[in-house]
Amino acid sequence: MKFRETYFKEVKDYASHTPEVGPEVLDCSQGVNPYGPTAAALEAIKNFDPIKVANYPHSHAAVDGIINYWKNQVELSAGEIMLVDGSVGGLYTINGLFAIPGAEVIGFMPSFTDMIVNVELQGMKYIGIPPADYSTYSQDVDALLAAINEKTSMVYIDNPNNPTGQLMPKADIIRILEKAKQFDVCVLVDEAYGDFVSKDDSAISELHNFDNLIVLRTFSKGLGLAGLRAGYIVASAQIIELLGRGSNPYTVSEVAREAIGGALSDDGYALSHAEDFAAIKQAMRAVCGNALSMMVTDDRGPICTLRHRDDVDLQALLIEAGVLAVSGADFDCMDGRCVRVRCPKAEYADQLINAVKKVNG
Amino acid sequence: MKFRETYFKEVKDYASHTPEVGPEVLDCSQGVNPYGPTAAALEAIKNFDPIKVANYPHSHAAVDGIINYWKNQVELSAGEIMLVDGSVGGLYTINGLFAIPGAEVIGFMPSFTDMIVNVELQGMKYIGIPPADYSTYSQDVDALLAAINEKTSMVYIDNPNNPTGQLMPKADIIRILEKAKQFDVCVLVDEAYGDFVSKDDSAISELHNFDNLIVLRTFSKGLGLAGLRAGYIVASAQIIELLGRGSNPYTVSEVAREAIGGALSDDGYALSHAEDFAAIKQAMRAVCGNALSMMVTDDRGPICTLRHRDDVDLQALLIEAGVLAVSGADFDCMDGRCVRVRCPKAEYADQLINAVKKVNG
Repeated sequence: MKFRETYFKEVKDYASHTPEVGPEVLDCSQGVNPYGPTAAALEAIKNFDPIKVANYPHSHAAVDGIINYWKNQVELSAGEIMLVDGSVGGLYTINGLFAIPGAEVIGFMPSFTDMIVNVELQGMKYIGIPPADYSTYSQDVDALLAAINEKTSMVYIDNPNNPTGQLMPKADIIRILEKAKQFDVCVLVDEAYGDFVSKDDSAISELHNFDNLIVLRTFSKGLGLAGLRAGYIVASAQIIELLGRGSNPYTVSEVAREAIGGALSDDGYALSHAEDFAAIKQAMRAVCGNALSMMVTDDRGPICTLRHRDDVDLQALLIEAGVLAVSGADFDCMDGRCVRVRCPKAEYADQLINAVKKVNG
Repeated sequence: MKFRETYFKEVKDYASHTPEVGPEVLDCSQGVNPYGPTAAALEAIKNFDPIKVANYPHSHAAVDGIINYWKNQVELSAGEIMLVDGSVGGLYTINGLFAIPGAEVIGFMPSFTDMIVNVELQGMKYIGIPPADYSTYSQDVDALLAAINEKTSMVYIDNPNNPTGQLMPKADIIRILEKAKQFDVCVLVDEAYGDFVSKDDSAISELHNFDNLIVLRTFSKGLGLAGLRAGYIVASAQIIELLGRGSNPYTVSEVAREAIGGALSDDGYALSHAEDFAAIKQAMRAVCGNALSMMVTDDRGPICTLRHRDDVDLQALLIEAGVLAVSGADFDCMDGRCVRVRCPKAEYADQLINAVKKVNG
């Protein structure tokens, strides 16, 4: 049968290396908030009137909630917002608009694997900028700036980064926006993990300063609604209108729209767990230093990357020690000696820290 | 800014011509089941435990329900099924796999407009086969068969057709599958309105006879769950695996998966309204004949197309007479003298029939 040839490229399969484990193993693999959704979101789901599903979704609760949520950073209008099926759905929709045949998307390695796979599927080439330093995986902003040229159709910044959890300072985002603008190139800032840092860390505040900025957010991570499938894109009204031509106009269910309204009313929810995650990361760092090291990360968020000095299967060693993490083999420019760990609730911290200590030796 | 040039084509905007109307106007525009969801689906939504949204969706209720639902037509396996964000989400995902640059998709005119728009956005060309007869809009199967050639990357059959509601006999679907197979071409049968006809009318029974068959179904129409955003693709395991490379792996929310399980347990629900829709269509036909005529349609389903003999704005005339319908201007090879009408519940039938009678003159 005739199929598009880009579908036959050798691709990394995100989370393909995450095995089933027994209940005695602590699951630190899923990139979600281990504390789950806000009480207000749970209440909105519980109070949802089922008969509303008979028609196509039309509630304004989500868009109104988003506008209100960002009012201290930027004054958004409804035409600058588009609802999407989680950040993955948003990435695919955005890639469509920039899928100029043969064009290049520039981003860091490692980054969210599904994005890289989809860029290639849609006929573009992903130019991954390697870390400045493999002992920390810190991002090389200067190398990324130097790589932007006339072949570039988009710059992709995963911020905070998945899998390391490192946060790019806004001053660097602005440098990238300025350089990209010189080449008429849009910059996509994927803030899937953005609820775990401050609103003021978001690129959204730059929306009215740069018409080449696209920000992607999701309700799956910090706000605990992964099972509802919802996220949103913020960009200029022109870009949102163009994206709309290639987007499912009915996406994001009516129940999700009402739950989002609830979730956003509980301001600062994801950040309220920052101290717990920071305590766990600091405790992990304290038991690393021999075989293991932790890559650069923002301590407020739940994810980080651990790296073993030897060519081992770190995921397998950690499972043996009682913890499931995502293998580095699922990410570009990493391999099995790395894992992405997502901090658990504070009450399970000891199981994780003891496992890291044991593997560190 | 640099964008993909296909996004700047002049396109039809589905439902862009549907105005806001007051409550005194009967809404016959939305392509949904006017009787809403099944009791079992409503019960599943009501009983959904909100805390389940914290993780990515993983319920098997939907896929298990689909396998069971079709057991008398074909023995499906989980690897032959993919959940999608309604039929629109499915169409976009499928188009990606066949978006060989410059390739042609062949289908009838009129067909579901969003499909045609997305084919062009993804860099393909839509070859629309005009009706055999403009006084009935009956489809010209022989002309479609003759159009399949080495440039074809996919054949698209909207069955029952949107906007006419006409049903293609399975023998014709098989002729198309056979001809397409000679050119290694897949045939997508979009059965968005398929729950309004019999299970035996579905192309799904041919799945194990033709490895070039893709069937798309949705829960938005006959099963009344448009607000939940869910549908599914049935195809060979190879095609499903390839589609998975370009698809959001987390699509369809956990609450929708549980509701689908409920909806499919109530076998024959959408068909239970067939007598009501048939009575309304027959009554409409009885008051047509002067200015208006009804295009060929299967009487069991709720949608049909009316056409005015003169160059009028039929949608506006019907609104004045108390009924909102979708303008033919939203569809290829139609214009404002046509509308798509979706039958209301039986209790509102008189308002529709009187409006048609008035406009018929």
